Amino acid sequence: MQKSKNLDQTTHAGQRGPAEHERREQIIKSADEHFRTYGYSKTSVSDLGKAIGVSSAYIYRFFESKQAIGEAVCAMTLGKVVDAIQQISNSDESASNRIRNVYKTISEQGLNLFFNEKKLHEIAISACEERWNAVDVYNQAKLDVIHKIITDGRSSGEFERKTPIDEVCIAIFETLQPFAHPILLQQNEPDVLKVHAVAVSNLILRSLAP
Amino acid sequence: MQKSKNLDQTTHAGQRGPAEHERREQIIKSADEHFRTYGYSKTSVSDLGKAIGVSSAYIYRFFESKQAIGEAVCAMTLGKVVDAIQQISNSDESASNRIRNVYKTISEQGLNLFFNEKKLHEIAISACEERWNAVDVYNQAKLDVIHKIITDGRSSGEFERKTPIDEVCIAIFETLQPFAHPILLQQNEPDVLKVHAVAVSNLILRSLAP
Repeated sequence: MQKSKNLDQTTHAGQRGPAEHERREQIIKSADEHFRTYGYSKTSVSDLGKAIGVSSAYIYRFFESKQAIGEAVCAMTLGKVVDAIQQISNSDESASNRIRNVYKTISEQGLNLFFNEKKLHEIAISACEERWNAVDVYNQAKLDVIHKIITDGRSSGEFERKTPIDEVCIAIFETLQPFAHPILLQQNEPDVLKVHAVAVSNLILRSLAP
Repeated sequence: MQKSKNLDQTTHAGQRGPAEHERREQIIKSADEHFRTYGYSKTSVSDLGKAIGVSSAYIYRFFESKQAIGEAVCAMTLGKVVDAIQQISNSDESASNRIRNVYKTISEQGLNLFFNEKKLHEIAISACEERWNAVDVYNQAKLDVIHKIITDGRSSGEFERKTPIDEVCIAIFETLQPFAHPILLQQNEPDVLKVHAVAVSNLILRSLAP
């Protein structure tokens, strides 16, 4: 699906110093607030330093560039979506309902991010265009969640077992794109997008029927 | 699906003068060549004028802005894709094969445009982001083609008839997006994208089975 990359969520390109350092979390939190309020391009490393009372040089001990900070914010934000869909995939609901919930959650969380917080949008577009590691991690997590739900649904007899599972999973992954990708999310009204997400999940479920 | 707009393919925002005028076609052809060679942003109206030996003022008799010329080029380019999928929808093949061919043609034509002619990519992104009329026309044409094939497949007994047809059509429309949208087209290697387009069309066909 993707060019192979290190998908270990604990490493982020361009970050320095011990990841557990409290300061690191403080910088990410401050950056998150600044990006939401002023936008990614209008925030400088010096602005972030001023906000938490340290020098730019001090911040560069943790992150080698503004992009590295952006990647950490992006990883944190997408990490919340990943947590939400992993929780769905591990729930007790039927596999069909879990598929429905994945479409619902991905579209709703995407809409929350990009309609309520338009300033985060430009960072998401950079993340996609420049293939930031956080996006690969997010894509891999979506694929793993789909794979788990399909496997469960095949075991329980809810889903057909004839089609190669990898083919089914990658196809479902692609059909999530209109609801997961920041640029496509922008192109419809939120209410329309939600209706379309339901239509696609229904179509997928008819396709999965044994 | 889209904010309502005039979908009449014969009108283009910002265009002046009689559409049948030979000069108009000459300007569009020259613009198409320039955009492919130098890119949309690096081409000026004055460059186009020089290329065909007229003044910028003369070009403005036909198009009120560079964007209006861009829209005409975009309409012409997408018009070719529309012709190709309309030809598929009207062919004698089974509805299933026509569905397969729509995915195949849309992904192949998109890849030709954006991998072989990377310079056209920026114009396509402007077209999507600024919701040019040509994009709405293209989207409506895709939806009409899907509707025709599904209707035919229901009549012939190839496809199920229980699901409301509009729901099926809009869901299929969304699942075409990863293969039709210039930004998503960029994100995978061409060979990978073609395999995914086949996987999605197979998934759709399982979904449509009676």
